[in-house]
Order: sequence, then C-alpha cells, then structure tokens
Amino acid sequence: MTFPTLSDIRAAHARIQPFVHRTPVLTSSAINEIAGCELFFKCENFQKVGAFKARGAANAVLKLSPEQKAKGVATHSSGNHAAALARAASVAGIPAYIVMPSNAPEIKKKAVSGYGGEIVECEPTLKARESTLEDVVEKTGATFIPPFDYLDVIEGQATCALELLEEQPNLDIVMAPVGGGGLLAGTALTVHYLNPSIQVIAGEPSGADDAFRSMQAGAILPNEKTQTIADGLLTSVGKLPFAVIQQHVEAILLATDPQIVEAMRLLYERMKLVVEPSGAVPLAALMANKERFAGKRVGIILSGGNVDLGKLPF
Amino acid sequence: MTFPTLSDIRAAHARIQPFVHRTPVLTSSAINEIAGCELFFKCENFQKVGAFKARGAANAVLKLSPEQKAKGVATHSSGNHAAALARAASVAGIPAYIVMPSNAPEIKKKAVSGYGGEIVECEPTLKARESTLEDVVEKTGATFIPPFDYLDVIEGQATCALELLEEQPNLDIVMAPVGGGGLLAGTALTVHYLNPSIQVIAGEPSGADDAFRSMQAGAILPNEKTQTIADGLLTSVGKLPFAVIQQHVEAILLATDPQIVEAMRLLYERMKLVVEPSGAVPLAALMANKERFAGKRVGIILSGGNVDLGKLPF
Repeated sequence: MTFPTLSDIRAAHARIQPFVHRTPVLTSSAINEIAGCELFFKCENFQKVGAFKARGAANAVLKLSPEQKAKGVATHSSGNHAAALARAASVAGIPAYIVMPSNAPEIKKKAVSGYGGEIVECEPTLKARESTLEDVVEKTGATFIPPFDYLDVIEGQATCALELLEEQPNLDIVMAPVGGGGLLAGTALTVHYLNPSIQVIAGEPSGADDAFRSMQAGAILPNEKTQTIADGLLTSVGKLPFAVIQQHVEAILLATDPQIVEAMRLLYERMKLVVEPSGAVPLAALMANKERFAGKRVGIILSGGNVDLGKLPF
Repeated sequence: MTFPTLSDIRAAHARIQPFVHRTPVLTSSAINEIAGCELFFKCENFQKVGAFKARGAANAVLKLSPEQKAKGVATHSSGNHAAALARAASVAGIPAYIVMPSNAPEIKKKAVSGYGGEIVECEPTLKARESTLEDVVEKTGATFIPPFDYLDVIEGQATCALELLEEQPNLDIVMAPVGGGGLLAGTALTVHYLNPSIQVIAGEPSGADDAFRSMQAGAILPNEKTQTIADGLLTSVGKLPFAVIQQHVEAILLATDPQIVEAMRLLYERMKLVVEPSGAVPLAALMANKERFAGKRVGIILSGGNVDLGKLPF
C-alpha cells in the first residue's frame, strides 16, 4: 500500500481547487492571551458543505475513470461526508446514492437531497447500512467512497494543511480533531512532507477516545460505547488513517464535554465563528494542556460548522 | 465644514492599519442562490472589539495632538463605541473615561474595563449622561470623542469600504446599516470617490426608521420611540453623517424584526458567521427587496458580531 506523496497531495489540491473554498486563516489576540500561545485557525467551517469533508469527497469523485463516473458513487453516512459526496457528485454531474438510517435527522436528509443525492433508507443499524450499501453497489455499479478509510479521501483532506502551511509556514504544532482519522492522517502526511519538525497533535473527545487508546496500545481498539457532544467524532479510527497516525502524529490529547463547550463558546464569543462541537475539540484539548503549548505557534484546523442552532449548548 | 477627502481616508487607513484587522470578504453560493444576486460580505464582525467601531475610534485617538493625548479621551456610550474607544486609548497608552448608565449590562462594563477604560457611572438618562460627561471633560481635560457625529470617526469608518473595493472593485451596490450614520457616511464617501457609479444603499430597522423618514423629509426627524432587535441601531442619525447621506446615498430600505432574524439565521447557518442583529439588517433589507438587486454584484458590510449567545433569537 502506498500513501499519497507530496506531489500527489499537490495534484489533489489543483484538482479540487475549482470546487472548494480556499478557507481563511484567522487569529484572535484575545484567545491567544487566554491560551498562552499564538493560534492560527484554519476555518474549514467556511468550507463548502460546512466542513473539510468537501475536499476528500471532491478528490475521490474527480479521480474516478469515465467508466466509473458514468455509474456514480455511493456511501453510507448520516453526517458531513454524505452531504459532501452528494455535492461532489452533483458538481461532476454523476449520480450519488446515499444510504441513510431511517431515523436520520430531517435536516441531514435535506442537505443530501438538496445536492441532488439519491437517499436510500435502511434500518438504523450498522449491519443494515452495510448490507443496503452492498445492494445499491451491486444494482447500480456505483463506486463506494468511504468517509475516511480510503486513500483518495485522505489525499483530499491533506490539502487543508497544505493551504495552512502555505500561509503560515513557521508553526511549531498543527492540531486537528480525530474521529475516523481521515483529516488527521492527511494533515500528518502534509506536515511531515513540508516540515517534519512541526509536531502534529490531535484532539479527541474523552467520551469517544478510541484513537487515544489505540495509540497507546499500538493497535486499533474501537469504541464500544460513546458519549460526547462532538457528534462528528463518534466513529472509530480507520485502518489506513491509523497507519499514518502511528507514524506521524506526536500525541492525541483528550477533552471532556464541558471543555469542548467552553472552547466552542470562546470561538463564538471571541472570534464570531459558528463551529460544530467536533470542530472545537482541538482547542479544548489545547486549553486542557496549556503548559504543553506555552509560547508556541499552533495551527488549528476548525473542521466544520454544521450545528443545529436551536440546540446550541449555551 | 470639510468632509474627509480620498487622500484623508487613505491616510487614515495607513494610520490605523497596525491596530485593526484587515477583515476578510466572504461569499456564499447558497445565499447568492436564495437572494438572486451575487453578495460579498465584508466581515467587520471579525474586527477588533467585534465591530467596525474599532476603526473610527482608533483614527480619532491617533489624530490627537501630544497635548490632547496626555489628557486622554472621554465618551458616553454603552455600546460598541465604548469598548472601541477604551481599546484605542489603551493601545495609545492614554486614559479613557467612559460614562455609562448605572443599568448598563455587566458584560458591556466588563468589555470597557477589560481594555483599561475608566467607567464613570451615571443615572440612566440622556441628560445625566451628557452632564456627567461634561463634568468628566472639565475635570480631566480629556477630549470628547462622539460615536458618529465627528469627522475623524467618519473618516475611520470610511476605511472599511476602502478595503472592500480594493478586493472587489466591480460592484454595482454597496450596503451598510444605518444607526447614527458614521459607517454609512464613511462608506458613501469612499464609494463616491472610488467609483461614483456604484450605488450605496442602507438597511435600517423599521422599528427605528429615523434615517428613512429623514431622507424623505430632507431634514433630520429623530426617533421618538424605537422597538427593534437591532440594538446597535436605536440612535438617531447625526448631523454630519446626514449631510453625507443626503448627497451620496441612493436609498434607505427598511427591514422588520422577523426579516432581521431570518437574515441572521442565514448568516449563521449558511456562512457560519456570528453576527449581531444590527449586522444582519442590510441583508434583511435586501431580501425584502429582491427585485431591486436581481443579478447585481452587492458588497455588504457585516458591521458587528457582539451578541449575547444566551439570547439568540433562534
């Protein structure tokens, strides 16, 4: 197995550029003062579909052969990857079949159908999702694009750190959240290629701490149960991302839900940014470990901003 | 009386540049589709102190003579101008005396004292505010910096449109909210100098519609009572701003509170931006008059983002 090289990642960036935002990097002297270090926030909450997932999905779709494109793409997801894949397919003018549990929130279904994705409902179990997806793929010949355990997706997510380091090359640390690990692995690859002296550190909710435990054990230990407000990070880390994370990630730091909410509040109040709980996890993990970051220049990827405004935790 | 020239405004921009953010201009294809035109949002919600007011206050403070600086500045305000003046004074290392009504919200007092401003409390009436301010000025020799009816403040606010048009010169229309009129007048001057074919249109809450009525009457007709969620726009338009507005503003369009809340929701949900109700008024006014803007390229100044997260209207 070969992981994307720097030139692969640069090619991915050129490939997806017409279809995604180059998101700004914002700073806040108020938060710097509170955190005791200098922070550079890469605002993927402003990304198309409201999350970095637009990058990986676009890259995966654009790399398909004409034959594959003709038959479309498929996935099972009720989160940002579903909307991102539906949008990427729509931009490419090909069908997207999205398997979603029958109890998925209306707003998530609307996002997918708004981009022209075809929703295939199934029972709300992982088994039903996988078997329904198999049926769809068999019937349509569509290519399955998994949310993170897939090289072209990791390659796409890696383009985010490319932009961050282009704008701020002199960082000591880059942080990203970890759920399935696609963003973290892509980030770690890019940072490793561009400047291996920059540490990559992940933030993970303590209520879904599989990546933290897996790093310590040296083997994937999936979550058995999860309980966290960071609903984008419930999934366990994938095999491909974990291989990269083991090699190139310095540490995984945990944050509790109250710490995540406090970090969200800082981002809303001080930076006027709408972020989803998962997007605030790295800042929360940093604030819970201030001494480690004291005086450093830290890039933080704010992964997404898709939050139900009626259910903000403050 | 001489209004700031283009070279005055450029000089102000150079003067304040080290002390304020150059805020980004963001776009949203989703909102463009809903609005039926192409929108460019100048994000002054990301500005220092969370509002464009940082520009005018910085400019006014930096233009003081050394003798004036030694005695400090004073104002009466319980809003963004109070915090902006306290911060500008703190950056310049001079005292700021801020007269605030005794019933001003704790959070606004904290913002002022957090920047080192000295709060002078008074009874919550306009008369008490004015007489307390006179006392402070007499006792300290501080220079009174009014929030909008003051040429150096208007000149500072004018730098916002300078940045917007530098980034997006080919606009058909530029929109700003109108309360006291400092931002609107500054915007109108800059746009007039750089490209008089661009129309300047204001958004105003229908529950505080003095500028709208004043434009029609050709004379200032202050608000007798106000009722709107846009708490930054309750004040009546000032004499100096009104003189500019009469000459260089094409129209003032009204928005109701439900329209303002709907525009806020669009900015939060689609653009992941925290804006205060006043900042959403121009978009609300545009959405209430879509036909007027159909197919146009419109720059919109999002004036601020200081909102109580516990009291969001959704």
